Amino acid sequence: MAARWRGTRALLLDVSGVLYDSGGEGGGVPIAGSAEAVRKIKASGLKLRFCTNETQATREKFVKKLQGFGFDISVDEVTAPAPAACRVLRERSLRPHLLVHDDVMPEFAEIDKTNPNCVVIGDAADNFTYANLNEAFRVLIGLENPVLISLGRGRYYKETDGLKLDVGAYMKALEYACDVQAEIVGKPAKMFFESALAELGVEPHQAVMVGDDIVNDVGGAQQCGMRAVQVRTGKYRPSDEKHPQVKPDAYVDNLAEAVELILRQL
Amino acid sequence: MAARWRGTRALLLDVSGVLYDSGGEGGGVPIAGSAEAVRKIKASGLKLRFCTNETQATREKFVKKLQGFGFDISVDEVTAPAPAACRVLRERSLRPHLLVHDDVMPEFAEIDKTNPNCVVIGDAADNFTYANLNEAFRVLIGLENPVLISLGRGRYYKETDGLKLDVGAYMKALEYACDVQAEIVGKPAKMFFESALAELGVEPHQAVMVGDDIVNDVGGAQQCGMRAVQVRTGKYRPSDEKHPQVKPDAYVDNLAEAVELILRQL
Repeated sequence: MAARWRGTRALLLDVSGVLYDSGGEGGGVPIAGSAEAVRKIKASGLKLRFCTNETQATREKFVKKLQGFGFDISVDEVTAPAPAACRVLRERSLRPHLLVHDDVMPEFAEIDKTNPNCVVIGDAADNFTYANLNEAFRVLIGLENPVLISLGRGRYYKETDGLKLDVGAYMKALEYACDVQAEIVGKPAKMFFESALAELGVEPHQAVMVGDDIVNDVGGAQQCGMRAVQVRTGKYRPSDEKHPQVKPDAYVDNLAEAVELILRQL
Repeated sequence: MAARWRGTRALLLDVSGVLYDSGGEGGGVPIAGSAEAVRKIKASGLKLRFCTNETQATREKFVKKLQGFGFDISVDEVTAPAPAACRVLRERSLRPHLLVHDDVMPEFAEIDKTNPNCVVIGDAADNFTYANLNEAFRVLIGLENPVLISLGRGRYYKETDGLKLDVGAYMKALEYACDVQAEIVGKPAKMFFESALAELGVEPHQAVMVGDDIVNDVGGAQQCGMRAVQVRTGKYRPSDEKHPQVKPDAYVDNLAEAVELILRQL
């Protein structure tokens, strides 16, 4: 079993459902043992990057919340979809109509949003009103070449008070209404994982992804040539273990167990 | 050309986008010439049925609005998705969680809704808040055998102030989030057209459908063996005429022209 982890030089950690469960009064609760596990990774000399699809806050705000929960994390250790989307928008001279959470808006402050020629959709949560989704729909259907950029394609995530619909569901609604296919800039897009690996300076076979999402974390990372572990926290459901396409390299109860497994071989 | 309409004994008319454009202060505006066209059909001896996917009101309220616009229409001439859904729910002992427009709720008054074992989704319009869609999602994802019944699968419709997202977009969101396939009880479901034909006592080849929706009206009716005409009113878009799968038996500018064409051969 231990042989499986040989050659590991870096860990990529999903955040929501792995480090903490989001939602509720304080913005969430840490998952037991995860803060200690992050400290152990850093002490071990392994490289570390946080790969999140969360788009409900700027990275600054997001990192501050996690620091408050006791995590050793800084903004420059985080790979997130909003900055990736901004790169794409600039490269292709796209001016977005934004359907995103209020708190992630500042990430797009420098982007020209006049006379939109595309729609960017993120996890807008309560901003997903009928009126707002309809407005995004009207922009898209009015374009000669409709471009829909989605900050992820997650189905749902777990908050402290239960499961919540994620951006993927609303992306599908717009795809169907306008007969377009969205371009994903978060997980499981290959480009997203590759940019995290480049930041770390490691090859895919040297890295292990740890996540609670069988498709977007585990499947996405494996498609890039990485190994991937699914934790039984967050949105994990027992039926994930019978997934027809994706088989993680290991299941673990939580991040603490994942780190123990991987550090044992060093 | 006239030969195409030989043997016609009945007309099935879509309502929104054919008789009137919905929305705005008075609930919509009639399309010029349509009220007169309905009278001509009735005077001609052709059988007539109104086939609507509208689920924003009870049939009673809906018919009253159309009568106010000057249409000769009564409740027992209307085939609509909500009563069709009630039949399915009763036959299969299903207890729905309803995500529908407030005004269509009375159609489900007699249905047991305690301890839901399925979700019924209609065109809920402003009721499609994030909280409401999430509630329906949680019911579905919590069922061992999730059943999603949709009162149509339209992408969008046209109101007086512009295009509006229809139930199909939200159906797709739930399908994706829960990995289920919805059962459609409105157009273009075969059962829906067949029940309208049974009410009229005619065979499919004796009936002509008139609608503004290339897929749900025209395609659905043709799949049942009926002929179908697309009107260039309502949500019609020029790109419909290049639809890769569906070719109407004729295009007409509006219902008045359709009726003129068909009556000419009688």
